[in-house]
Amino acid sequence: MAGHPFDPLSASELEDATRLVRKSYGSDLKFNVVSLQEPRKTVMRAWLADPKSNPKPPRVADVVVIDNNATVHEGLVDLDQGKVLAWDKLEGEQPIITLEEQQKVEQICREDPEVIKQCEISGMLASDMHKIYCDTWVVGYDERWGISRRLQQALMYYRPTPDSFQYQYALDFCPLYDPDLEQIVHIDIPKVRRPLRKDVPPIGYTPADVQKLGGYRDDMKPIIISQPEGVSFSMNGRELSWQNWKMHVGFNYKEGIVLNNIRWKSRNESEDRGIFYRMSLAEMVVPYAEPEPPHHRKHAFDFGEYGAGYMTNSLALGCDCKGAIHYIDAEVPTRNGGVRLIENAICIHEEDSGILFKHTDFRDDSVVVTRGRKLVIQQIFTAANYEYAIQWIFHQDGTIQPEIKLTGILNTYVQAPGENCDWGTQVYPGVNAHFHQHLFCLRLDANIDDGPNTVYTSDTMASDEPVGSLKNPYGNAFFAKKTKLSTTGQAKTDYDAMTMRSWDIVNDSKINSSSGKPSSYKLVSREVPRLLPKEGSLVWKRAGFARHHVYVTKYRDDQLWPAGRHVPQTSGEPSRGLPEWIGDGSESVENEDVVLWHTFGLTHIPAPEDFPVMPAEPVTLLLRPRHFFDRNPALDVPPSYLTLPSQIEKGERTAAYDATDKMSKPAFGGEEKTIPIVGGGGGCCSKL
Amino acid sequence: MAGHPFDPLSASELEDATRLVRKSYGSDLKFNVVSLQEPRKTVMRAWLADPKSNPKPPRVADVVVIDNNATVHEGLVDLDQGKVLAWDKLEGEQPIITLEEQQKVEQICREDPEVIKQCEISGMLASDMHKIYCDTWVVGYDERWGISRRLQQALMYYRPTPDSFQYQYALDFCPLYDPDLEQIVHIDIPKVRRPLRKDVPPIGYTPADVQKLGGYRDDMKPIIISQPEGVSFSMNGRELSWQNWKMHVGFNYKEGIVLNNIRWKSRNESEDRGIFYRMSLAEMVVPYAEPEPPHHRKHAFDFGEYGAGYMTNSLALGCDCKGAIHYIDAEVPTRNGGVRLIENAICIHEEDSGILFKHTDFRDDSVVVTRGRKLVIQQIFTAANYEYAIQWIFHQDGTIQPEIKLTGILNTYVQAPGENCDWGTQVYPGVNAHFHQHLFCLRLDANIDDGPNTVYTSDTMASDEPVGSLKNPYGNAFFAKKTKLSTTGQAKTDYDAMTMRSWDIVNDSKINSSSGKPSSYKLVSREVPRLLPKEGSLVWKRAGFARHHVYVTKYRDDQLWPAGRHVPQTSGEPSRGLPEWIGDGSESVENEDVVLWHTFGLTHIPAPEDFPVMPAEPVTLLLRPRHFFDRNPALDVPPSYLTLPSQIEKGERTAAYDATDKMSKPAFGGEEKTIPIVGGGGGCCSKL
Repeated sequence: MAGHPFDPLSASELEDATRLVRKSYGSDLKFNVVSLQEPRKTVMRAWLADPKSNPKPPRVADVVVIDNNATVHEGLVDLDQGKVLAWDKLEGEQPIITLEEQQKVEQICREDPEVIKQCEISGMLASDMHKIYCDTWVVGYDERWGISRRLQQALMYYRPTPDSFQYQYALDFCPLYDPDLEQIVHIDIPKVRRPLRKDVPPIGYTPADVQKLGGYRDDMKPIIISQPEGVSFSMNGRELSWQNWKMHVGFNYKEGIVLNNIRWKSRNESEDRGIFYRMSLAEMVVPYAEPEPPHHRKHAFDFGEYGAGYMTNSLALGCDCKGAIHYIDAEVPTRNGGVRLIENAICIHEEDSGILFKHTDFRDDSVVVTRGRKLVIQQIFTAANYEYAIQWIFHQDGTIQPEIKLTGILNTYVQAPGENCDWGTQVYPGVNAHFHQHLFCLRLDANIDDGPNTVYTSDTMASDEPVGSLKNPYGNAFFAKKTKLSTTGQAKTDYDAMTMRSWDIVNDSKINSSSGKPSSYKLVSREVPRLLPKEGSLVWKRAGFARHHVYVTKYRDDQLWPAGRHVPQTSGEPSRGLPEWIGDGSESVENEDVVLWHTFGLTHIPAPEDFPVMPAEPVTLLLRPRHFFDRNPALDVPPSYLTLPSQIEKGERTAAYDATDKMSKPAFGGEEKTIPIVGGGGGCCSKL
Repeated sequence: MAGHPFDPLSASELEDATRLVRKSYGSDLKFNVVSLQEPRKTVMRAWLADPKSNPKPPRVADVVVIDNNATVHEGLVDLDQGKVLAWDKLEGEQPIITLEEQQKVEQICREDPEVIKQCEISGMLASDMHKIYCDTWVVGYDERWGISRRLQQALMYYRPTPDSFQYQYALDFCPLYDPDLEQIVHIDIPKVRRPLRKDVPPIGYTPADVQKLGGYRDDMKPIIISQPEGVSFSMNGRELSWQNWKMHVGFNYKEGIVLNNIRWKSRNESEDRGIFYRMSLAEMVVPYAEPEPPHHRKHAFDFGEYGAGYMTNSLALGCDCKGAIHYIDAEVPTRNGGVRLIENAICIHEEDSGILFKHTDFRDDSVVVTRGRKLVIQQIFTAANYEYAIQWIFHQDGTIQPEIKLTGILNTYVQAPGENCDWGTQVYPGVNAHFHQHLFCLRLDANIDDGPNTVYTSDTMASDEPVGSLKNPYGNAFFAKKTKLSTTGQAKTDYDAMTMRSWDIVNDSKINSSSGKPSSYKLVSREVPRLLPKEGSLVWKRAGFARHHVYVTKYRDDQLWPAGRHVPQTSGEPSRGLPEWIGDGSESVENEDVVLWHTFGLTHIPAPEDFPVMPAEPVTLLLRPRHFFDRNPALDVPPSYLTLPSQIEKGERTAAYDATDKMSKPAFGGEEKTIPIVGGGGGCCSKL
């Protein structure tokens, strides 16, 4: 095998895996998952530490299939040895829903007599069934059927013309679909009916729609971003190097981008230090607020129920990404055992990030100005109506910044004339957008200075000493209190705005030579809504990971996804994933191989500004080195401009360092003011 | 007068004002402030509404001077009429400290026998006094002298060579300087002495310093940003137009950038709507945590004690700003009545801001991708060791995003060998950086839909109905509770992370046609530390504005600065500014001309990564239109790429809209994959 053990399964590996499974278990299986079983960590760490002496981890495919009797099996296939290692019937669980399964529902709804009847009740003509569209969601959990059969719920929309904007035209009933039977098995019909709102002028975002509103604005001049000398990063297969950062860029069906073995390796190789063994978004849940059934079922687990990898967009140069861009394709299985290529599934590029640091000496205007750079690794996925642009941003100062931009379309429901809804906003006449939350779970497999690690909370607070006391005479004393999270129980923690709580992932055995404090990375995250569905609610039971902002567990192979491996139709009794793994909370996570799970996101109370398509709303957080480096690790980034006091005193006319960007121009032409070296390198005082 | 009433005083107006004052009150006055008295709002609003029928507000200079007896006077000069309107002796208050006054201290310290003696005690040679440097701060408040005389405290540093990094070498004593006497009047000497740390290898950020660490990195390839067809904004004097935004860009000595009359004016002029009458950063305070006197005096009010305008940097094209940049100069008075020109005090430019919105239809991969743009109005000021880059960012979707990047150098103190400090971090051997906060006060003079306005808190919370009840059967109900802040007392409010509190500035008489809710702008701010010095502490008394995250007051002319007009040496008894204006809290702020004051910022627990120069740390917040527009206001931004379902169905080979950026390139060369119009406009499903 030529590839890296972290590499996703290649097309030929996918084909090998399906061929081997079919050979053993039948040729008419439907493939739900064929994906890399990630290398066992013990084996992998040994190989990474010394690839010459230690065996390379084997290539193993993780496979989930459904047979013609709707029975689900999962297994492991060793691709090196060409044999099935394990094969089990999946009972009491339901596998992910694939895009192929979602897409089939629309056609079946259009032909289903009961659906046609309901469409007529809603005010449609039976002859207009080709104008019906379905956004098909996993049913969530419905106690009438439980886990006994696979079920999808079809959110119903209407398009007067093929290019109409369906989310303006929601229908009020909800068919349930069984993908194994390929049938509508039930329709949930509200007690109070809300006819289709054809009475409102159409809206949308097509050129024709915009033309009706006055046409596109014509006053935006192009901005050109280019790197004529090439990019500053390099790729060795999927191993990326940029500005002291090293990592492997993986991808799987569930999480999309997976970053492995994130390290800081200095130019002279004097440092080669672990930071994270693995980093990904591992799950999310989107609870909606409308309590009236069946709306309570709207709480999508986009990763666990559909797969952020499966739903990943092909990105386009000059549209999704601008500048000099590197793309990586993805390959995923199809239901019939083929391979689907997602071209440009991941994009990687650099961006100028403004001033990295600056200081002017007010005495003489001697100055340093250094511009910064960031590296962005991006994926965008479409979950029916919503889009999520996930950016993994790396900075030169050692900061890692996961950022998600939310855009796309609101999930909508029909609002009757004169109706008022306590749990949604009428974003356009007749269009109700229910309140909802987007709660993402970031999984950080910590490896600070190659571990073991311990997590602490850090709370800034006033000294206990009263104002006027000997130790606090003027009352200004404050500090950061560090609390060790010794067990999984203690580690269930929440954000505290009173103390601006952050979390430190610490290697207590690696002491910083400057500060005498242990090496750490700090999680700084402020976009941390609580799970608003109440304790004991269906969502609370199913999304155990979202009950607290931070959990810490001891690393175990295959504990990857915090709502569990098979999320569809879980009842939450018991809660799967994190709550199972934590149990009674007594396990030690002190000085161990630890995983930190962090839930963050936003609560979305829609407004008309979000319709018909939402301006991207960012959610971000920072992972910052603290006591990890013994000085500013970006000190060696070349400045744009630097002058010295001694030069200014001597009246020298050149800067000590001048890499001013000569391509920058005054906005309205005219003379560029040259930087005056004597008395005025950016400062304020030389002309006094 | 040809200029705009919001324009700062021009050089000739500054000269007129000083000439008129000197004529009346003597030629040897020292000028502390000569600045525009902002137009009275009633007169100004009338003129803005109908400049033909209503008088243009007069040009009035606000002047503060100090005479040879150290007596301070302040007055108003009508520049149209050429006469002094008011002239008063300032008693019980001290004016701002100017850069000129700060710069003088160093020379006087070098020659002061007592300072020389203390330097010798610290381990310096008396012959090395030219190696002494002072960062001179306002004394803050010291009860030994109170407000009776002007006092500055000199934080002492040493430079072995002129280009050495002084913040590595702090001295342990603190001279107090009287700028009126031009003398050192006292030296605060600690009980336990800490000699100068010459025992540690020097560090710094000059090329020579970096050379010792291995030299600059050489693997950063240039990124070129250009606008060959020019910029998309225009300037009429200081009135700026960009993408439906209109505003006036002002500047004063205290706040730096002041934005006035911020409006949304659509292309076809069907809308011309007020948002903010005035927006600025109005004050800040930086309390340090070390309780041992005299460190308690370190709590700089950088705006009120020194002036963010006075300390503003001249910005350099291609260093501070990249791309196509427009600059505006500033002119401020000198102590002797002259004019100091700050070239390029403000820069204005556009940036690509990534995806503005995107949606892919998972059925056929029909797609819209629209890239966004932001406008940045920036100022950078140097407050002795720290730099603050203040960006006022405007987005096409109606969002306003004030953002501050903090960089520069930590304030440092000497740390003795083996010493441990509970209130600071040893960021480098011998260098103690005390914990501190940066609390900024954003002043929003609200004008949502041309007022009057009311402020509400908005708290997302679960329904009161229990899980399993008729109204909340599955427990998922939640909503945003709105609480009207009717009086100034009720409006003293704080962030609540449990509810992700935001604040809505509402025009209750302007109802959104889509939602039926009133027009508003929402303040979304998460970087909101509490003032950590305790209630009753010196800082708590002096920085009354920082006790709560939000205050609302009824607009009054001249209530601009929340710690008061003259901040130096205030005792906080009584607290000046906001606490005075609010009084007993009974005044109505419901449906009034209201001003919202918001304190935000960060608590900085330093680490070695912040030394010797700090990587820029951003603090940001959002002002978002909610129910202000009846749809996404950026819907008419031309897409990069748009395809229609009907096109894909017909197999057309062209997009409905294609403005793909053809200058973008693959990072490592090779073929660009063209966007396939049929089945794959960025989507995920066409290849199933």
